[in-house]
Amino acid sequence: MKIYESRTAPNPRRVRMFLAEKGITDIEFIQLDLAGGDNLKPEYLARNPFGKVPWLELEDGTCISETVAICRYFEEMFPEPALMGDTPLQKAQIEMWQRQCEIYFMNQVGMCFQHTTGYFKDRMTPVKEYGVEAGKNAAKFMSRIDAHLADNVYVAGESFSIADVTLLCAVDFARVVQLRITDEHPNLRRWHELVSARASAQA
Amino acid sequence: MKIYESRTAPNPRRVRMFLAEKGITDIEFIQLDLAGGDNLKPEYLARNPFGKVPWLELEDGTCISETVAICRYFEEMFPEPALMGDTPLQKAQIEMWQRQCEIYFMNQVGMCFQHTTGYFKDRMTPVKEYGVEAGKNAAKFMSRIDAHLADNVYVAGESFSIADVTLLCAVDFARVVQLRITDEHPNLRRWHELVSARASAQA
Repeated sequence: MKIYESRTAPNPRRVRMFLAEKGITDIEFIQLDLAGGDNLKPEYLARNPFGKVPWLELEDGTCISETVAICRYFEEMFPEPALMGDTPLQKAQIEMWQRQCEIYFMNQVGMCFQHTTGYFKDRMTPVKEYGVEAGKNAAKFMSRIDAHLADNVYVAGESFSIADVTLLCAVDFARVVQLRITDEHPNLRRWHELVSARASAQA
Repeated sequence: MKIYESRTAPNPRRVRMFLAEKGITDIEFIQLDLAGGDNLKPEYLARNPFGKVPWLELEDGTCISETVAICRYFEEMFPEPALMGDTPLQKAQIEMWQRQCEIYFMNQVGMCFQHTTGYFKDRMTPVKEYGVEAGKNAAKFMSRIDAHLADNVYVAGESFSIADVTLLCAVDFARVVQLRITDEHPNLRRWHELVSARASAQA
């Protein structure tokens, strides 16, 4: 199996961390230069039409893109340790928190980055005013998740899950738009130290 | 079980259609006035902190929000008919397509709606220029999915799935921003007629 990715981008890190937690190591990683547009080459778009990284290529050539869909594949193939829940209720609650970290924080950080820096201005139209708003939304989420983490060891409760993977990769990426954990986020800071100490955080 | 929702909003329709496909009927639906801010009342925010509809409330008071997390709960509790896949590969491919319909189309339609109309301007800062860009992104997706549907009966292949639910609710909602299926989308039109004819489309 191969994963096409860029080591410095936040979504590939989510997949690498997920795989490290599962102990899956027999994967070839192929690096693409996103700023240079490697991911938009016709040969790659034929296999991965939306051009986003990472994508997983199976031995038979089947391609799966979208970070959480790739994680789902590995969760179903290698169920232990479960990172997406065991019972129906756990699965739903982990999916809820994963999505909330993704939609209301990681995506907002990404929009702030893309629209305020113009990093991908060769392939999209940055709207700075929107990027600034997205950054405010991301900052609000940090306060909300800080309050939630006062009563929860991990994002989705007592167990480490994919929701923690998403939040860690997003919090660390948020430094590119000057969003950082401060003294106003003591619970988020406690959680960040706990999760950053896992070996998978270095993946 | 109770579901708090608004009948005219697109995300609650996704859940109702999913439940109709499963044949699940013993749920009480409670209508909220989103424009009036019902969903932002303190009593509701205490149970559903992000204030988004729909959310599911179980008998013991546990709340699950985020459309796909609610669907996941019902998929796991009532596996037949499977709407999120059977095998690891099917589950991953359906999740990929569901997410692509959601991220690159439904969310872009929503951003176009919110940022060009100012519908929620009491609770967010609309940036019209960004809304216009989001509408262009949504229009591009309609051409892409039209090409994909030339070779696929349903969005994720041969079987109806949650990806079709997302796309149908998004395509129908897109009329609010004047995005419609045209003669340039013959495959999307074929698919839309097929999926709209299901009883669940009326849910």
